[in-house]
Amino acid sequence: MRRTALAIAFVSMLGVPAFAQQADIEAVNAKWIELFNKGDFAGVASLYTEDATAFPPGSPMAKGRAAIEAMWKKMAEQVSDPKITTLDVKSLGPSAAREIGTFSLKTKGASPRELSGKYLVVWEKIGSDWKLAADIWNDGK
Amino acid sequence: MRRTALAIAFVSMLGVPAFAQQADIEAVNAKWIELFNKGDFAGVASLYTEDATAFPPGSPMAKGRAAIEAMWKKMAEQVSDPKITTLDVKSLGPSAAREIGTFSLKTKGASPRELSGKYLVVWEKIGSDWKLAADIWNDGK
Repeated sequence: MRRTALAIAFVSMLGVPAFAQQADIEAVNAKWIELFNKGDFAGVASLYTEDATAFPPGSPMAKGRAAIEAMWKKMAEQVSDPKITTLDVKSLGPSAAREIGTFSLKTKGASPRELSGKYLVVWEKIGSDWKLAADIWNDGK
Repeated sequence: MRRTALAIAFVSMLGVPAFAQQADIEAVNAKWIELFNKGDFAGVASLYTEDATAFPPGSPMAKGRAAIEAMWKKMAEQVSDPKITTLDVKSLGPSAAREIGTFSLKTKGASPRELSGKYLVVWEKIGSDWKLAADIWNDGK
């Protein structure tokens, strides 16, 4: 797709706002998984906006990076091996997008089970970085 | 707040894009509740964009108005008396916003219980109407 690459380069040169591409979002998600698997929950939290909200099922909302870091740290005591599949990214303007996807996790303990579900993320562009601004999921997919 | 009303009227006259106000969103939510309580699920579905996605816990995504109508119709066999509280509306541009809120429902049957939780909605402005474009919730608040 040489022509596409040239078109993208041309548009970039014009300084047209860079709307969210699925590849941008997937790159951050890959980093999210890498940091989670390393146990770097401060790193995971840094992928969220400073005032982001996460909505863990069965628990209150987690607001802000410190609460989100604590939430994922606690979650990692119960589950491992998260997988994320982005199904659709829709740009909502030059600095916002929404992502729909599915996930799976494995429970820890004597008889591990696979849990799966679906999620919605609102992304915001802060400087040149796409950050998770709202992150909610539930079971069933 | 006479001065505010005048300022809003003036801005409207200038044709500045009308960013989502919490009052706009709450008005649609009030309509949603009214239609749900009447059992008008086609009416409820009409408050969503044509390609909206809803994410019922424990079930697959419902995509598009027909699927969303069927989902709420089925849900109404199990629950009643939905209440919605908008906590925060953030504009994501002239034609998109995200809403964070909490809800409660009553289960039907011999020993009704109250269920409560939290939700995230992505709103899109279609013509002059704000419509739900993505609607997801889970338990715990």
